[in-house]
Amino acid sequence: MYKRRTDLAMEAHELWKESAGETTRLEGVEARDTTREGFQVTTVKVLSEAGAAALDKPVGTYVTLVLDGLLRREDDAFPRAARALAAELRALLPAAPGEEVLVVGLGNRAITPDAVGPLAADHTLVTRHLVDRVPEHFGAFRPVSAIAAGVLASTGMESGELVAALVEKTRPACVIAIDALASRSLRRVCRTVQLADTGIIPGSGVGNARMALNRESLGVPVVAVGVPTVVDAATLCADVLSEAGMAELDPAALSGAGEGVIVTPREIDSQVRDLAKVLGFGITLALQEGLNFADAELFLS
Amino acid sequence: MYKRRTDLAMEAHELWKESAGETTRLEGVEARDTTREGFQVTTVKVLSEAGAAALDKPVGTYVTLVLDGLLRREDDAFPRAARALAAELRALLPAAPGEEVLVVGLGNRAITPDAVGPLAADHTLVTRHLVDRVPEHFGAFRPVSAIAAGVLASTGMESGELVAALVEKTRPACVIAIDALASRSLRRVCRTVQLADTGIIPGSGVGNARMALNRESLGVPVVAVGVPTVVDAATLCADVLSEAGMAELDPAALSGAGEGVIVTPREIDSQVRDLAKVLGFGITLALQEGLNFADAELFLS
Amino acid sequence: MYKRRTDLAMEAHELWKESAGETTRLEGVEARDTTREGFQVTTVKVLSEAGAAALDKPVGTYVTLVLDGLLRREDDAFPRAARALAAELRALLPAAPGEEVLVVGLGNRAITPDAVGPLAADHTLVTRHLVDRVPEHFGAFRPVSAIAAGVLASTGMESGELVAALVEKTRPACVIAIDALASRSLRRVCRTVQLADTGIIPGSGVGNARMALNRESLGVPVVAVGVPTVVDAATLCADVLSEAGMAELDPAALSGAGEGVIVTPREIDSQVRDLAKVLGFGITLALQEGLNFADAELFLS
Amino acid sequence: MYKRRTDLAMEAHELWKESAGETTRLEGVEARDTTREGFQVTTVKVLSEAGAAALDKPVGTYVTLVLDGLLRREDDAFPRAARALAAELRALLPAAPGEEVLVVGLGNRAITPDAVGPLAADHTLVTRHLVDRVPEHFGAFRPVSAIAAGVLASTGMESGELVAALVEKTRPACVIAIDALASRSLRRVCRTVQLADTGIIPGSGVGNARMALNRESLGVPVVAVGVPTVVDAATLCADVLSEAGMAELDPAALSGAGEGVIVTPREIDSQVRDLAKVLGFGITLALQEGLNFADAELFLS
Repeated sequence: MYKRRTDLAMEAHELWKESAGETTRLEGVEARDTTREGFQVTTVKVLSEAGAAALDKPVGTYVTLVLDGLLRREDDAFPRAARALAAELRALLPAAPGEEVLVVGLGNRAITPDAVGPLAADHTLVTRHLVDRVPEHFGAFRPVSAIAAGVLASTGMESGELVAALVEKTRPACVIAIDALASRSLRRVCRTVQLADTGIIPGSGVGNARMALNRESLGVPVVAVGVPTVVDAATLCADVLSEAGMAELDPAALSGAGEGVIVTPREIDSQVRDLAKVLGFGITLALQEGLNFADAELFLS
Repeated sequence: MYKRRTDLAMEAHELWKESAGETTRLEGVEARDTTREGFQVTTVKVLSEAGAAALDKPVGTYVTLVLDGLLRREDDAFPRAARALAAELRALLPAAPGEEVLVVGLGNRAITPDAVGPLAADHTLVTRHLVDRVPEHFGAFRPVSAIAAGVLASTGMESGELVAALVEKTRPACVIAIDALASRSLRRVCRTVQLADTGIIPGSGVGNARMALNRESLGVPVVAVGVPTVVDAATLCADVLSEAGMAELDPAALSGAGEGVIVTPREIDSQVRDLAKVLGFGITLALQEGLNFADAELFLS
Repeated sequence: MYKRRTDLAMEAHELWKESAGETTRLEGVEARDTTREGFQVTTVKVLSEAGAAALDKPVGTYVTLVLDGLLRREDDAFPRAARALAAELRALLPAAPGEEVLVVGLGNRAITPDAVGPLAADHTLVTRHLVDRVPEHFGAFRPVSAIAAGVLASTGMESGELVAALVEKTRPACVIAIDALASRSLRRVCRTVQLADTGIIPGSGVGNARMALNRESLGVPVVAVGVPTVVDAATLCADVLSEAGMAELDPAALSGAGEGVIVTPREIDSQVRDLAKVLGFGITLALQEGLNFADAELFLS
Repeated sequence: MYKRRTDLAMEAHELWKESAGETTRLEGVEARDTTREGFQVTTVKVLSEAGAAALDKPVGTYVTLVLDGLLRREDDAFPRAARALAAELRALLPAAPGEEVLVVGLGNRAITPDAVGPLAADHTLVTRHLVDRVPEHFGAFRPVSAIAAGVLASTGMESGELVAALVEKTRPACVIAIDALASRSLRRVCRTVQLADTGIIPGSGVGNARMALNRESLGVPVVAVGVPTVVDAATLCADVLSEAGMAELDPAALSGAGEGVIVTPREIDSQVRDLAKVLGFGITLALQEGLNFADAELFLS
């Protein structure tokens, strides 16, 4: 069958329901919608290997925030989005309040849709050196280090290899890994964030699968923060047809057409910059429980 | 009828032939394929108002170079592309060898697919001040000035208004205006250049039509140098379906779907940078007849 | 005599007093210190040709703000600096509230200490197109256009020529021209702003004097906004010696040494970025009387 | 005594001779001038602890290339400089031809004079992943990995800690560490490269000394590649006075004046970019014996 490509568990679940029928229940998968700070939050729990196979996603919890007001630059959408992200991320975080966390920005700074991870790492408050050297002022902070892991072609090292080296050296309690994803729909690009307690495979959003970053490979739990920034051309086409209310084509017919062509919205530059800032603020608020949004602005802007 | 959106006369002609049948001849339009420096060159001449109406393009000559080897980074593709562009541009240029030319880069530097015009202007050899002040060394050069015209939102002035002010002040023999275009096909994005002696409407590639830059508005002839950097989502979809060999859908069904969504390839950053350099070199070689490619490298790299 | 190089009237006046003695009064020059929003403001009025000759500055009013808290990133230093600049600039502005103003950023974006003018123009709220096209929403705003005038080497046109073309075309009531200056002292670099109702000679801060931008050359009054970003090496040396409390050397001995070497602080990148933002906000608040700082943040950040 | 600040062994030796007299011989130090590809090469060998104490530099070999033609953009100065650097670096390199090397760019990308290390790492040909994955094509290359080590404030990790983690993980035969230095003289800034087999203390050029990168700290030999990009203000002043032929002042008098003020030439942006490219090419030619300059251009430009 022609497969629409998506890294979002929420979309994988939608697609399953589209093919199986809205009323059918998928064994081993629980989904639930709530609202946080005015944004829709969808939590998909993959509970069994059967559910994992059906959605093509590992067992674990996937939380998707739909940050619609953000692109419309609604009043106070930015602090609301950062706080919503912080609350959901904190709930997933497998680290006690004072334990060290390593934040990793995956992807290629030189290619805008891949740059969201490195840019978000830039916007994260880094405290590990301060907690260590100026404990009288920073003793109440959680030690946080951050790195943009670069890409294989520019370092000669896999992101996973680099992160593993740092985990062995600095021994954090957990890793937060930020990466670009692929969505099935342009409407979700740059306005959706997926949190997952399953770890991540760097570059999966853009077609170059690599060594996974997860508890198995690193020895510590990994929370993934993913943002869809691309759509593949054939998936986009199927989406446009559905939007037009057309009966779906025989998918075999599309196979091969537009293959490998990955697209991105024209205004990707500003959208990626804005969203990276939300991610950095949200991660900082999740990690530093004593800070509120106004505090974070003083440190990060 | 559902219209695939394109700024390329070559594609408009293809689309007409697809609907009317390959063997039908379009009144008032002549098309011809040749080769230059190993690249395909398609010249479409719109000779009458009937032809103009059929293709939705003003009367004039449109020369399209397909620079396929460039993206594959074939050996010496860059100098060959610059020379091919120079030869075709010189043939269209309505200015005698020593006459002054103003080069205008249209578009928004902050949005990558719109930045090709400003970047190409940056890569053009500017000589007007040198010819004027150091005639003993630069007397043999054509005086060339260049400007990135900015965008309405950042200057408060239309590009056309700004260029008109400069034309009145500096009195060039002609204007070369570089801009981003929309193509019907992702396969042509960033590997095609269209030269036209008809002038240009800034921003037409990205949905914000403005005052035209042409002989009527400026009082001097305008040669347009356009590069497709975007495709609209519905057009892309129709293209993917055709590629898949499917009979075309009833176009009415698609109308409204994916509307206004403009896409661009994921690697747009490097593709736009590379092509802007080819444009700057090609324009420089067209304007300065005494320079060869190696000379231009000394001045421009 | 060895001349310390400075573009600041305040420093020229200091130097005159250092050579003539603190108690001597300079004929044709009035100086006065006040405070605005907690910052020191020095106003030097050059009233006669005798005063102009003594200070090597044209007849006119020069207002210097010393924004010391800004580099120390004191709480609310940024809004205070923007408001102080706005109040002083408005007092100098030769345009009635609704009259159009053209803001020009002079200098070279590619050289950090020269980039303050273009960056400040980027941070200025541009309204001319909105007042014209959406008068129902923007009718209460003053029409403001803005341009980074580029540099001779990249456009082939003098900044003065370009600005003159735009003034002829758009007919503003006055021009505000922003440029980098040279100071005698590194301590003033990037923490001082000079406003002058005399116009400006582009590039004078960095050694390439050009056609003046003033009422004589443009036909409309020109307010200059200048920021010292460089010091020449010999001037810096004389300053270090004075700071060390040493009797001044025979200046002839220094002539030729370190000549033409222009220096800048190591952290010039962030200092220029921060100050450009203050300038853009300050100019916007001066021009749009209905806006307060929080309003400007919504439009400009 | 007032100390002129320098990270160049060549300058430390000059200063010693200026104070001790040209004809005095310094015990434990050997210096020798030669020429390579038309550039002056000065080798200073610090042979004993007495020599180390006199020059305030660890025992080891320091090779300084003076790349004067480079800033004047003389014909073919770029390839000559890259080849000269490659030859001198190869002579110092403690690794056999096929052994893996890790190249580290130290310093802060956001501050231009500190960015030379990260930029040079960007211009170095990275092959480790290719040798490993495509041995049929890249088996003849030396495996090279490269990383910009970031700065403490942005990662929370010391550069030394990060490099140690990578050395433990990837086990290279040696490390090449590139960093910005301080010179005593603006005339040497951005036109001098110092190679040293002693390792390096990151950030020593700009006032923030850190954990050393050397055989003791990393367990593998470290070759330092340093470029002076800054001068401190008091040192510059002493230099300007000497240039003016003045007897040197009592240094105590200057102490405290201009203290901590670090300066850089106005055109630092383009100078750092150009020199980083020379470093990347030179390091690549040193490490890949089978490549010539034209080959390196294909890979690196």
